[in-house]
Amino acid sequence: MTTGVWLIGARGSVAVTSAVGAAALRAGLTGPAGCVTLLPELDSPALPPIGDLVFGGHDITAVPLDKKVESLVTAGVLPARISHALGAEIAALQTRLRPVPAAATQLRTASLIAADIRAFREENGLDRVVVINVSSTEPVPAAHPAFAGLDALDSALAGADPVLPASALNAYAAFLAGCPFVDFTPSTGARLPALHELAVREGLPYGGRDGKTGETLVKSVLAPMFAMRNLHVRTWAGTNLLGGGDGANLADPAANAAKAGSKQRVLSEILGYQPQGSSHIEFVDDIGDFKTAWDLITFSGFLGIGMRMEFSWHGCDSALAAPLVLDLARLAAAAHAAGRIGPLTELAFFFKDPLGDVPHALADQWALLARFARELADA
Amino acid sequence: MTTGVWLIGARGSVAVTSAVGAAALRAGLTGPAGCVTLLPELDSPALPPIGDLVFGGHDITAVPLDKKVESLVTAGVLPARISHALGAEIAALQTRLRPVPAAATQLRTASLIAADIRAFREENGLDRVVVINVSSTEPVPAAHPAFAGLDALDSALAGADPVLPASALNAYAAFLAGCPFVDFTPSTGARLPALHELAVREGLPYGGRDGKTGETLVKSVLAPMFAMRNLHVRTWAGTNLLGGGDGANLADPAANAAKAGSKQRVLSEILGYQPQGSSHIEFVDDIGDFKTAWDLITFSGFLGIGMRMEFSWHGCDSALAAPLVLDLARLAAAAHAAGRIGPLTELAFFFKDPLGDVPHALADQWALLARFARELADA
Amino acid sequence: MTTGVWLIGARGSVAVTSAVGAAALRAGLTGPAGCVTLLPELDSPALPPIGDLVFGGHDITAVPLDKKVESLVTAGVLPARISHALGAEIAALQTRLRPVPAAATQLRTASLIAADIRAFREENGLDRVVVINVSSTEPVPAAHPAFAGLDALDSALAGADPVLPASALNAYAAFLAGCPFVDFTPSTGARLPALHELAVREGLPYGGRDGKTGETLVKSVLAPMFAMRNLHVRTWAGTNLLGGGDGANLADPAANAAKAGSKQRVLSEILGYQPQGSSHIEFVDDIGDFKTAWDLITFSGFLGIGMRMEFSWHGCDSALAAPLVLDLARLAAAAHAAGRIGPLTELAFFFKDPLGDVPHALADQWALLARFARELADA
Amino acid sequence: MTTGVWLIGARGSVAVTSAVGAAALRAGLTGPAGCVTLLPELDSPALPPIGDLVFGGHDITAVPLDKKVESLVTAGVLPARISHALGAEIAALQTRLRPVPAAATQLRTASLIAADIRAFREENGLDRVVVINVSSTEPVPAAHPAFAGLDALDSALAGADPVLPASALNAYAAFLAGCPFVDFTPSTGARLPALHELAVREGLPYGGRDGKTGETLVKSVLAPMFAMRNLHVRTWAGTNLLGGGDGANLADPAANAAKAGSKQRVLSEILGYQPQGSSHIEFVDDIGDFKTAWDLITFSGFLGIGMRMEFSWHGCDSALAAPLVLDLARLAAAAHAAGRIGPLTELAFFFKDPLGDVPHALADQWALLARFARELADA
Repeated sequence: MTTGVWLIGARGSVAVTSAVGAAALRAGLTGPAGCVTLLPELDSPALPPIGDLVFGGHDITAVPLDKKVESLVTAGVLPARISHALGAEIAALQTRLRPVPAAATQLRTASLIAADIRAFREENGLDRVVVINVSSTEPVPAAHPAFAGLDALDSALAGADPVLPASALNAYAAFLAGCPFVDFTPSTGARLPALHELAVREGLPYGGRDGKTGETLVKSVLAPMFAMRNLHVRTWAGTNLLGGGDGANLADPAANAAKAGSKQRVLSEILGYQPQGSSHIEFVDDIGDFKTAWDLITFSGFLGIGMRMEFSWHGCDSALAAPLVLDLARLAAAAHAAGRIGPLTELAFFFKDPLGDVPHALADQWALLARFARELADA
Repeated sequence: MTTGVWLIGARGSVAVTSAVGAAALRAGLTGPAGCVTLLPELDSPALPPIGDLVFGGHDITAVPLDKKVESLVTAGVLPARISHALGAEIAALQTRLRPVPAAATQLRTASLIAADIRAFREENGLDRVVVINVSSTEPVPAAHPAFAGLDALDSALAGADPVLPASALNAYAAFLAGCPFVDFTPSTGARLPALHELAVREGLPYGGRDGKTGETLVKSVLAPMFAMRNLHVRTWAGTNLLGGGDGANLADPAANAAKAGSKQRVLSEILGYQPQGSSHIEFVDDIGDFKTAWDLITFSGFLGIGMRMEFSWHGCDSALAAPLVLDLARLAAAAHAAGRIGPLTELAFFFKDPLGDVPHALADQWALLARFARELADA
Repeated sequence: MTTGVWLIGARGSVAVTSAVGAAALRAGLTGPAGCVTLLPELDSPALPPIGDLVFGGHDITAVPLDKKVESLVTAGVLPARISHALGAEIAALQTRLRPVPAAATQLRTASLIAADIRAFREENGLDRVVVINVSSTEPVPAAHPAFAGLDALDSALAGADPVLPASALNAYAAFLAGCPFVDFTPSTGARLPALHELAVREGLPYGGRDGKTGETLVKSVLAPMFAMRNLHVRTWAGTNLLGGGDGANLADPAANAAKAGSKQRVLSEILGYQPQGSSHIEFVDDIGDFKTAWDLITFSGFLGIGMRMEFSWHGCDSALAAPLVLDLARLAAAAHAAGRIGPLTELAFFFKDPLGDVPHALADQWALLARFARELADA
Repeated sequence: MTTGVWLIGARGSVAVTSAVGAAALRAGLTGPAGCVTLLPELDSPALPPIGDLVFGGHDITAVPLDKKVESLVTAGVLPARISHALGAEIAALQTRLRPVPAAATQLRTASLIAADIRAFREENGLDRVVVINVSSTEPVPAAHPAFAGLDALDSALAGADPVLPASALNAYAAFLAGCPFVDFTPSTGARLPALHELAVREGLPYGGRDGKTGETLVKSVLAPMFAMRNLHVRTWAGTNLLGGGDGANLADPAANAAKAGSKQRVLSEILGYQPQGSSHIEFVDDIGDFKTAWDLITFSGFLGIGMRMEFSWHGCDSALAAPLVLDLARLAAAAHAAGRIGPLTELAFFFKDPLGDVPHALADQWALLARFARELADA
């Protein structure tokens, strides 16, 4: 079973770290750290080996891949010895990237995107391709009646006015091309009734959304701790300082609002109430890819006594996200092979804003994922 | 089913907060916060209501209870309005406390302790009494051949030389008196083959040890997070600043060593390897009962990229421990009523250094505890 | 020399803590902690004793003082034993508070304010009264041509439209009444050319603005450290979580902007350049008067090596501000007695946004203040 | 005026970073960051330019310099591009390093050390050589009667038993060779009456001790802040996690004790009392040269209200120390040229445990240093 990974935002930090990292794993230049599906509890022959994944994708920029790799080395995201050893792989990857097509209607654009994906599948002799969105966060789109059903959407897309945000148009195109779609960003992606309808019609699974790589990951284990100990969380306030491409983008209040919302949702889902405080995002160019989050939690215990906890997290966003992209590619490919259709709710472990009515505590999400991996292995 | 709680160290902060807190709950002066067994997933008619628990105990000091309560109010551990409202309850509790007996041999001392416990049971018309050790941490005792079996122990106790540390002598006496025993401290308690033999002979359950109220609690949810994400923890180093009675005692290097050891064990148990770094305990009188812990965790992810997390925890030790003492009293009483004999491994959720071959990740311990609570409810 | 202190916002937390704290000092119920002018380097007979200060003031609310004191006790800002001992003092203070007057024109309102201040001075037989603004932060007012000169201002105030924000109108009234004015808030206060003209005409000194009690205080010693060591600060980003009255008010983006600006100014003044990052203020009701600030500083040293520092500050805003209000009353009174006219630039030590071209490093501000105190002592 | 720098511990991280960094500055590969004497307030033609300094020294190991440089690059202390550009400089430096001589008596060893220093001076045509100790921290030596006077010391050194610890023997040899001596470590160095006597006899200045590069630096600005605000510091407790060569060495309790002591002294010197808490040092190999310190400060303000501050510092020890070594070489050389004899108390700014009765607040130390630099410039 040969598997392709088509990345939306293929010249971005997460995409390049994923593709170069997969090559480094194949070449034995690095170990499994960070890859969840390489843990013995999850791995199985049902999942395509990371070293066999073939990468391609679209990007709105045309930055040469070697320049991007160089900037990741300078930023401390990619070790220099790995980039040096993989020059030929990086050059080959470069040939599989395409500029984003654009046409007079979104329907026509979608069909060009789908054609690029199909060509990638055929030229590389792939059994299947998983499409994963790792591009910058979009603002929340205004509601549109065509979101509600596929017929209305098809008609609207044929018109001159744009209807779908880019992430959703890519999901549409992925489904047209017969590919599972995963949204690693907080953008709309496949999360519209019309797109669900299309996925089901085409017999395709989809997953998302918003990869859980830092502050929210920590929340998803600390909030259950307070709940299990019957401690009442009064305030949970956080600050995220981040640079890099997505940081600049999140400085846009519209995109920021989307993300900050999904970052607090985890608390009410786990605790059953919403503590005071919000999650603040600030762009600091100098921070680069090494995001720093600080959270203050005040809580009260027996007899109402007030206590507090603080944590700070200093993580390399791309290094945390990239292996999860590989995990999601493996899992979505196996789910597709096993005939799964519709939302992959079992992937909640990976996301800030998971699909479906699923647990938000990490340990419960892990149990769900482990059972899913066993089912795939036994399928 | 009327249940007594006999506390070793009954004039200490944890003991007094437990007993006064139970009275406050009965009087409707406070809510359930901090009490784990009051969560709907765990509570059941099989557990004696907190408001029905009757408290008594031993203490080596004779500090008047109202003085102790006053000092807890000053320290911010007990709200003034609660202590004001409960003067009569506190005076009544005072009458149920006894000085620690002492005799020429440890065997004779144990029988005096057991007599006090039996008198407490009879005078208060109790169906059963749970004995809980909340006294100061002891140094690790030197090994003694009499620890290995009950016959050897009985003989040795009859001699003039002391054999057992105080915590173990209290466990011995509790079992003589037909009572379940729980050790909330890192001391020896019931954890000797000879005492296990005695508990089994008397048909009694026991639990322990070392209540998990702060840094280790946090470790037991963060370490699984790193493991589930396949992130390699390189360093986990912590500092605990604490005052109060137990703080002064832990400044003693012997006691300190015992506690610091059990604080790092959780990491190797969960991660499968021991990261660098140790857990340092320092006595700072001014900190009082509000313990401050700070931990640094360095870890590496995909492609070996180094990252870090810090947390600080500012918790009121007695306020965190006291409700767990109430939980343990309820659970041990119900286990006794249900005929359970030997180590209560299902109580691992409460302890830094749990009995038996049990999980150390908090979510797994919770699942174990919830199943146990359901079994008790169904018994 | 008997001195009165007329507080704008006299029923607020800072005002009440100041007045009750002064009474506590007089009664020997507390020590000098927090009062800068009680340090031997600064104190002298030229400064009126804290115990002799007489307090009065205006407030837009009519909350009874004993209720306010009670809420400060509950919040942990005032010790219960102090409030209990000072009931008579608090009742007497209550009689010296007045509702804020309002009239058809601002000129008329100012004259009513001045009349209240004069009446306070006469009824209490005071030699002089210092007016201090401790009310909530105002938004930055729109520019108005009448700000530029006293004649234009007098004419404009006689019109029906309001010209001055409340803080500036109070400064105007204070000067009319012959009183020095100090602004402890970031509001406009006396900082308009027209008001400077009035102060000079009346032969009065004034001081401000924005009391430096937390994060900015720390910045004013850490930034010089980086400068003296020739370390390049790349990012300085901070978050302030605060509740209480001023917290709610600062959630208003307009007021917030004023304060956040003055919080970063200290860095460019000391370092000679503006690092990346901003200072974020967030209202969290549960935090109350105990403000928590967290700052991240990234810096580079020799050979460009990147390093970082974080701090968190958990301070009781009223307890930090109140003694400085007492200090400022003493110093402004002595400056007035010594014939000082115009801006008291030597008070920069106390303020985030000090008047005049003064140093921002705390040690330099201290030297300036100490010299000023010696001059007053020698006058 | 050509100046040599003779380093004790010349193959260690600090020494190599100093020498390579000076070459990088000369080559224009890096800027002045971290070098205090390059600030305009301090620099003058009286100080030898950093680019003109010539380095040599002793080391007990024989690790090849290119290997050491490589390990510093891997550890993130030296940028790869700088080490690549300076291969020839590093090779030349290697030729100026000598093995530590050893002879039957310490007197004879000292004369061999002095001969090596003289040879370095002559072979490189240097006007003067400053000897700086940057080797590992020694345990505190046992007191010896020969420490008290030069005659007794000379006699004792001629015996078979060692009298002086290595740092002091090097100071002795430096003085014999007519060189100023600076101790950057907490070891004994020149701090014995007998060695002072020798320095005075030879007309030489000396400086020290224990370079202030992290936690103590921060203390020296924060402690004055609390003092100037009349806030009472109750607890100041710190933890230092450090790896690298000196880290391993400080794990030795004897050396550790010396360093931890000097780390708390700054507090009592500045505050006038000793807060509770200690400074704990722990070796964590994985941390390497990037030391992490965390401090908790609890303090009380007006009306006794308790508050707290925490900071964590993540600094690269060698990158912080190396430029100070260059500063000290420049200043000691200029002091020697200006005829200064005995302890250079004006260098307190650089040290945790400064010589003489000097201020410990950083701002005061800066003022002392700036005046000293002006005097040298005017000499």
